Amino acid sequence: APVRCGVLVISDRCHRKQVPDASGPCLTELLRTSKSFPATVEVTACVPDDVDAIQAVLKQWSDVLGTEFIITTGGTGFGIRDLTPEATTQILDRHAHGMMSVLAQQTYPHSILSRGVAGTRKNSLIVNFPGSPKACKECFTIIESKLPHIIDLLRNNLKDVAIAHH
Amino acid sequence: APVRCGVLVISDRCHRKQVPDASGPCLTELLRTSKSFPATVEVTACVPDDVDAIQAVLKQWSDVLGTEFIITTGGTGFGIRDLTPEATTQILDRHAHGMMSVLAQQTYPHSILSRGVAGTRKNSLIVNFPGSPKACKECFTIIESKLPHIIDLLRNNLKDVAIAHH
Amino acid sequence: APVRCGVLVISDRCHRKQVPDASGPCLTELLRTSKSFPATVEVTACVPDDVDAIQAVLKQWSDVLGTEFIITTGGTGFGIRDLTPEATTQILDRHAHGMMSVLAQQTYPHSILSRGVAGTRKNSLIVNFPGSPKACKECFTIIESKLPHIIDLLRNNLKDVAIAHH
Ligand code: NA
Repeated sequence: APVRCGVLVISDRCHRKQVPDASGPCLTELLRTSKSFPATVEVTACVPDDVDAIQAVLKQWSDVLGTEFIITTGGTGFGIRDLTPEATTQILDRHAHGMMSVLAQQTYPHSILSRGVAGTRKNSLIVNFPGSPKACKECFTIIESKLPHIIDLLRNNLKDVAIAHH
Repeated sequence: APVRCGVLVISDRCHRKQVPDASGPCLTELLRTSKSFPATVEVTACVPDDVDAIQAVLKQWSDVLGTEFIITTGGTGFGIRDLTPEATTQILDRHAHGMMSVLAQQTYPHSILSRGVAGTRKNSLIVNFPGSPKACKECFTIIESKLPHIIDLLRNNLKDVAIAHH
Repeated sequence: APVRCGVLVISDRCHRKQVPDASGPCLTELLRTSKSFPATVEVTACVPDDVDAIQAVLKQWSDVLGTEFIITTGGTGFGIRDLTPEATTQILDRHAHGMMSVLAQQTYPHSILSRGVAGTRKNSLIVNFPGSPKACKECFTIIESKLPHIIDLLRNNLKDVAIAHH
């Protein structure tokens, strides 16, 4: 079955309709058209750079909807209001250290400016991407090929993962 | 004196003897035959993917036996029962951020799937490797040349480290 | 306006005048002569490898003086007294995961030995560098080009950052 995904845009200005959001549609398109990662975008939202607002959506999607893969875009930088990594870290059960390091390594030098985290909450994989379509595409492409295996493990599909135990 | 090492296999299935463990013997052999890192494997164990069981061994080896270098293998992935990084993080005094990033960087793209951590507890260096012999060998080779210096510092052998103050 | 910087040397031996400090003057010179990052070193200090002493200076500079960019040098290794990352982590509001990973990646294999962290406290960017002039120069050069943009964001200079939203 296609992986049920959510795309969360985190931006004060997009939320206030001051600027149009380009990253959300970009991510939705990347997920819909991926060859190596069959996915369907079931839910999208836009929230301001507010820790409570961010956490409310992540919890709802993970705990209630059972969204399997959640990408956030925006709020990962050094602006006073950039709090996406802090909001995300607090609601994660487990951190994905390798994925975080790899994203930083493969997007150098731009990654110096990004503070995004990645990990799991219950059976959901949650990843913070920066707030530009270019960065979203770059980051998605880096992890795309490994996503099916991660989702299989989170689905606890023992038959599928028995051959690749980590 | 050779560095006193411990190898901890973390796997439900190996613990239940459902599958033979290949990573433990692989690590023992790597440590015994290393040219740049004179080491002796003093203790080995296999525990299920259980936070309490993992922490009990790590504490015993570090606090009671004074094991100087502890490698764990297994439980670093995204399976529901993969909790090695969480168990390890909680009992570490200090994190080895550089070593963690370097292991991720040098084992890309496989490292996207690994959540392993590294650091120290008292005078012990503790590192999480993935649960395959291939990954264990890859990871050990990456850090092998720096291990003697780290162990010297943990031994507080001031004479040896005075020339390389960090 | 030039970025107001602080350089904090963390070393028992330098503090006791047992050895001269070379990293502090090296960092001051790098900051004073940087072409891409107009900066002025407003404050320097040397403290022992003591968590309270380190945190007292970082808090004073960030909270009272409003120092915009603080570099620490020393105490990032595996010696028993190396506690700079732990002291720093505790007083940071936000972690700069990307910068940390990039510094480790770009200074491999030496970075295996470094446990330094980076992040922000209030409007200050704080980064831990290792305790040698060579490592300080290497690390500064890696992040130098991105520092103006980070400081702009921390200054909340919305006009400047509107074109590069992250
Ligand atoms: Na990293």
